[in-house]
Amino acid sequence: MSTLKLSLDEIYQLAKEVMLANGCDTANAEALADIVSRAERDGSHSHGLFRLPGYVKALRSGKVDGKAKPTVKHITPAVIQVDGHGCFAPLAQAVGLPVLAEATQKIGIAALSLVGVHHFAALWPETEYLADRGLVGIACTAYMPMVAPAGTKQALFGTNPISFAWPRPGHSPIVYDMATAAMAMGDVQIAARDGRDVPMGTGLDADGNLTTDPAAIAKGVLLPFGGYKGSAIALMVELLAAGMTGEQFSFEARATDNGDGGPPRGGEMVIGMAPEIIAGDGWQTHVEGFVEKLTALDGIRLPGERRHKNRQDTGSRAINAALVETIRGLL
Amino acid sequence: MSTLKLSLDEIYQLAKEVMLANGCDTANAEALADIVSRAERDGSHSHGLFRLPGYVKALRSGKVDGKAKPTVKHITPAVIQVDGHGCFAPLAQAVGLPVLAEATQKIGIAALSLVGVHHFAALWPETEYLADRGLVGIACTAYMPMVAPAGTKQALFGTNPISFAWPRPGHSPIVYDMATAAMAMGDVQIAARDGRDVPMGTGLDADGNLTTDPAAIAKGVLLPFGGYKGSAIALMVELLAAGMTGEQFSFEARATDNGDGGPPRGGEMVIGMAPEIIAGDGWQTHVEGFVEKLTALDGIRLPGERRHKNRQDTGSRAINAALVETIRGLL
Repeated sequence: MSTLKLSLDEIYQLAKEVMLANGCDTANAEALADIVSRAERDGSHSHGLFRLPGYVKALRSGKVDGKAKPTVKHITPAVIQVDGHGCFAPLAQAVGLPVLAEATQKIGIAALSLVGVHHFAALWPETEYLADRGLVGIACTAYMPMVAPAGTKQALFGTNPISFAWPRPGHSPIVYDMATAAMAMGDVQIAARDGRDVPMGTGLDADGNLTTDPAAIAKGVLLPFGGYKGSAIALMVELLAAGMTGEQFSFEARATDNGDGGPPRGGEMVIGMAPEIIAGDGWQTHVEGFVEKLTALDGIRLPGERRHKNRQDTGSRAINAALVETIRGLL
Repeated sequence: MSTLKLSLDEIYQLAKEVMLANGCDTANAEALADIVSRAERDGSHSHGLFRLPGYVKALRSGKVDGKAKPTVKHITPAVIQVDGHGCFAPLAQAVGLPVLAEATQKIGIAALSLVGVHHFAALWPETEYLADRGLVGIACTAYMPMVAPAGTKQALFGTNPISFAWPRPGHSPIVYDMATAAMAMGDVQIAARDGRDVPMGTGLDADGNLTTDPAAIAKGVLLPFGGYKGSAIALMVELLAAGMTGEQFSFEARATDNGDGGPPRGGEMVIGMAPEIIAGDGWQTHVEGFVEKLTALDGIRLPGERRHKNRQDTGSRAINAALVETIRGLL
């Protein structure tokens, strides 16, 4: 793969310019460029520049309003609703997260319900935002039907990611962000391209049979991770992201989406919790005792560790040259 | 297996009398009898009368105080802490859940942190309590180290169950309650007794090798369900149940427990959320549209469905005769 070296600032500027050139106002363009450049900084390529063409499609088709101004409603001291009015999720988050963090720091637990947004990014920026302020974050969103609930053969759940972050003042937080699908469809497609089998349980072929052939799964459906138990987690995500926000379930997003390839309209639920208030003084020392035990285990992989290690490197990033060319073509 | 027919009231009375005979006051005895008889009513035998000998061991060793009176602290309008002062969890729940429900109905989201309790029961009674009042419930607790984090060979997590309930006014709620271990150790032991293999991934033998031999796993460690992703959920449970309550992590519970076979001291985190406040009017109709799609799927198994079906039967229950004899021997 031929690559180009881009500095983090160049990545940010490229993303911002493409968004501005395709109908975003400055606020929307900067929120998106921020998310994209942070993903590249952390080595999360699948949520970085790779997403830009999809963002542009959604702007050009008119599905997403790049000039939308999110509005904040403080429903109770513990419940905040941000309506994106059709913007990309990052701007609504940029508006809502400070309000959520403040409410959580005051009252100990709070919920941020995002509606009228188009979510296509990672979820760790939301939960890490809270962890960076000494708070625990849980975030989840639905998508479009791609995953068959355990026992069935028909897609109803989205890939339904969930992210969790636990603050460790003075250290990188513990943070994960994972699809509740056994594997992301993108990874299934890459396996098909490379001629590699995927583990049994990843998905079903078009006839509803288990298979290790990624090309067959690409024509069929994904399965949740971890069988019935993972399916239960995927169900919780669907209910919190759509039922609890009042926004579209995955099947509704499919029904109303214009099929432009960009992110559908959906909801996101973010929960903040303050250990300082709930557990009280001494929580950090207590938890560090546990983390010490955890990290001492042979073979352990602490969630978020690799991303945070990548982050230390402030140098340029090697970006797929063909992707950069495609993106520059969108200017 | 020889069984005896006991009415639900006889089950309740038997449990209550055994608790009273072993040092519980009326409040503790009734809270426990209530939980035990509801488990038998629902067919959750592993959390019913089966647990009584363990409860009695913990009373007789003096680990649990059957006369403890839980105290309630309203830390903020959204955070309630109940200190059980060493009681069994059901009494602390009976005291805390009404306060949590009221706070959730008022402010939209609230947390109940239980400390100083000994948890040995199912978690669905907590989340269903909330669902019966139109609220969403999430509950989790840790235990003692039985599960090796993914990638490692050493137990650090408890079986760390998580329960989730979504209210469906007019219908049974959607509710699940599951260990984040691939399989409960009790089921591994039953498989060993019956000479049945367990699925690969259930656990490791004493040398840290994957095996399908349940007898070997009983001498080794369990694994989380669903590999790295399930391990991440088990980690979240450990952090919420111990880090967020300030109570013991599983490894601390092991270090301080007296080994009497009863439940160790630990914490529990219960979160309530009000869809009426967060999603607003119309949430029920919206969610029922999704549930309709879900239940229409061929092969679907709705979480909680079987228990709620068992519940319709108000008749007597067939209880293992040897177990009843053991329990009567504790009077």
